[in-house]
Amino acid sequence: MKELEWHRFYRGKIEVMVKCAIRSLDDFAVWYTPGVAQPCLKIAEDEDQAYEFTNKWNNVAIITDGSRVLGLGNIGALASLPVMEGKALLFKYLGGVDAFPLPIAEQDADKFIEIVKAITPAFGGINLEDIATPKCFYILERLREELDIPVWHDDQQGTATATLAGLINALKLVGKKIEDVKIAVIGVGAANVATIRLLEKFGADLKKMVVVDSKGILGLHREDLKSNPYKWEICQKTNAEGKTGGIAEALEGADVVIAASKPGPGVIKREWVAKMNDDAIVFALANPTPEIMPDEAKEAGAKIVGTGRSDFPNQINNSLIFPAVFRGVLTVRAKTITDEMTIEAAKTLARFAEERGLSEDHIIPTMTESEVFPEIATAVALKAIEQGVARIKMDEDEIREEVSEIIRTTQEKLKKLMELGFIPEPP
Amino acid sequence: MKELEWHRFYRGKIEVMVKCAIRSLDDFAVWYTPGVAQPCLKIAEDEDQAYEFTNKWNNVAIITDGSRVLGLGNIGALASLPVMEGKALLFKYLGGVDAFPLPIAEQDADKFIEIVKAITPAFGGINLEDIATPKCFYILERLREELDIPVWHDDQQGTATATLAGLINALKLVGKKIEDVKIAVIGVGAANVATIRLLEKFGADLKKMVVVDSKGILGLHREDLKSNPYKWEICQKTNAEGKTGGIAEALEGADVVIAASKPGPGVIKREWVAKMNDDAIVFALANPTPEIMPDEAKEAGAKIVGTGRSDFPNQINNSLIFPAVFRGVLTVRAKTITDEMTIEAAKTLARFAEERGLSEDHIIPTMTESEVFPEIATAVALKAIEQGVARIKMDEDEIREEVSEIIRTTQEKLKKLMELGFIPEPP
Repeated sequence: MKELEWHRFYRGKIEVMVKCAIRSLDDFAVWYTPGVAQPCLKIAEDEDQAYEFTNKWNNVAIITDGSRVLGLGNIGALASLPVMEGKALLFKYLGGVDAFPLPIAEQDADKFIEIVKAITPAFGGINLEDIATPKCFYILERLREELDIPVWHDDQQGTATATLAGLINALKLVGKKIEDVKIAVIGVGAANVATIRLLEKFGADLKKMVVVDSKGILGLHREDLKSNPYKWEICQKTNAEGKTGGIAEALEGADVVIAASKPGPGVIKREWVAKMNDDAIVFALANPTPEIMPDEAKEAGAKIVGTGRSDFPNQINNSLIFPAVFRGVLTVRAKTITDEMTIEAAKTLARFAEERGLSEDHIIPTMTESEVFPEIATAVALKAIEQGVARIKMDEDEIREEVSEIIRTTQEKLKKLMELGFIPEPP
Repeated sequence: MKELEWHRFYRGKIEVMVKCAIRSLDDFAVWYTPGVAQPCLKIAEDEDQAYEFTNKWNNVAIITDGSRVLGLGNIGALASLPVMEGKALLFKYLGGVDAFPLPIAEQDADKFIEIVKAITPAFGGINLEDIATPKCFYILERLREELDIPVWHDDQQGTATATLAGLINALKLVGKKIEDVKIAVIGVGAANVATIRLLEKFGADLKKMVVVDSKGILGLHREDLKSNPYKWEICQKTNAEGKTGGIAEALEGADVVIAASKPGPGVIKREWVAKMNDDAIVFALANPTPEIMPDEAKEAGAKIVGTGRSDFPNQINNSLIFPAVFRGVLTVRAKTITDEMTIEAAKTLARFAEERGLSEDHIIPTMTESEVFPEIATAVALKAIEQGVARIKMDEDEIREEVSEIIRTTQEKLKKLMELGFIPEPP
């Protein structure tokens, strides 16, 4: 099997490499004892100097407890390592970010939080990954509150941001406004909980929204959810009409459906899509198989369809988001990533697609349109400065130049290492 | 100041780099979803497969709580980062090891141990660094017992191993035997506690040894040390004669003095060395200034003098040890580093110097004799196999070839990146 063969061939997808000059052993006297004492003393005096004298400014920890890895469930921290290395590879290649995989063998949320807090000194940011619900919400919330570096749960914020970007353009194409549309949300996992919050901040009317979990539509009648604060909040804020039932009822009269529930096909039926409003927008984001296949949804009357897959048009892909968002926040040494910053990322992604020409099959850029990364990074960095959460101020041109240069150099370096044979072709 | 200028110029001494081929975005389907699920499943079935499909086999965490950084004291985890990055640089350049700096903001020993245990999934080894005594002994002991990957405290084992290597050759030159000599040990910090243990295992007669801390000679009379289990053990095992007093008394009639106490000069006085036995061996290892300067010691009658400094002959330097020891244990996926393995490293280092010609000014190789690294790595790996602590078996030639190749390639890659301008010259 190619996947196993390639992984076994390289035995790891990332390495730790020296990035400063070593001309002779004499240079060790600067990089190690006795010279290295000098930057230590500077940092001991003023913590922010760590951003000047070390790689903290560009380091991100990729952290998981392995409790919900891809679609494989709780396979644990160690078995998650190939995914975390893959994520590090994407971070570096697409964003020029030095991300190190750090699966943590601890399933208790409070202990996990204490561990993450303790390992932050080396890092300018934290990327959480593949943590089960509902603890992922609690972990993200507490770490965002208690740390002064950006903390991001990609399964929440990354997916929500890409979804919002797609929705912005889809609505533009069908001529509807975010505050007017009825949105059905199918699945209440990490992604959709974050998407609901982001849609609310972006102006969606939650009273018109209908949310469905595996037991049916959420609302005040769902007393079984009172013990889950995240779902209960949704019960209170959405479904003002007091709808009951399941996916079928939720889709009736909806303008938009955003599904991130369980792999299809057949989770969303064609006849349910047929009962949506005209010019329906269908995002069926389950992997590896969408809740309804795009051709079926179209035949049932959907105007615009997005999925999580690269082999259909309109891939709602968080790899378009996280490398650029972190590139931006690291460059201005942000203390956090606010929802306003992620909305800015979504708007920038949407605008980029629009400038290249919107169509039913092009509501969001593809990964090959890599010019979008520096644009998102710049927008996020500027928003951080505007909101007062950046440690340093830079102007737009400076930011764009720096982030572009970092990403370009990374990709050139890799290309050169491949050309020179330091990185061989896969078998 | 050059040290600050250079550190600020590179803003970090190491980076995380992609080490597998990315020819096009299509390769992401193997390195990330959906392909990456395959190696995850293999590891979920069998933990040891992590060594086959990820970089765990070559990853080492450089861990500290920042409680005793260089000679700077407890400057904390964050301010230690330049040192830990420097260590990572040495690991990579000298040993081809992917070491990542991971200072931990936790000063409680038990909590610290739990954190280290939790972050091990990504790592094939742990290097502890710059942790205060006595907690460093407790932390090392527990982690060695409780983890199934090698744990090494360089300030203990690294320095002890280099010291033993120097002593082996020094004794050869003066024609004395380890079991016969009277050794005075000055300072009871991390290094000397480990040195004493290693000397005992190597055959030194502890009854003839006299150990001195800041309050005087250790022995059964030192009731103040009953609460410190590490020092009290030394009180019980050494100084059978029941000597009292200080450094002066300890040196009287000694064949060897091993000092790792506080920076000199003048900590060891010339007249005290004069009262040592003929052909005295003096290791004055305090940094930046030895307890007694080499010329003074020689004038007082010392035959062989070693220090921690590169600008005098006979540098007792743990950078000769740790990159090679880890290269060896990582290559055979060892579960631990036994004292027998470190003794093997010391013997190999000593033998290498001997083959090149022993003299009073050449009892130990210098850093420029880099051919010694693969030799030490190979010897340590073979010992691990012999002792049944290696996860895989390889023969001597295979090991030597693999470790040599990894170190050579790393240095070539860095050289090429410098030539191509990816790594600029320092300002």
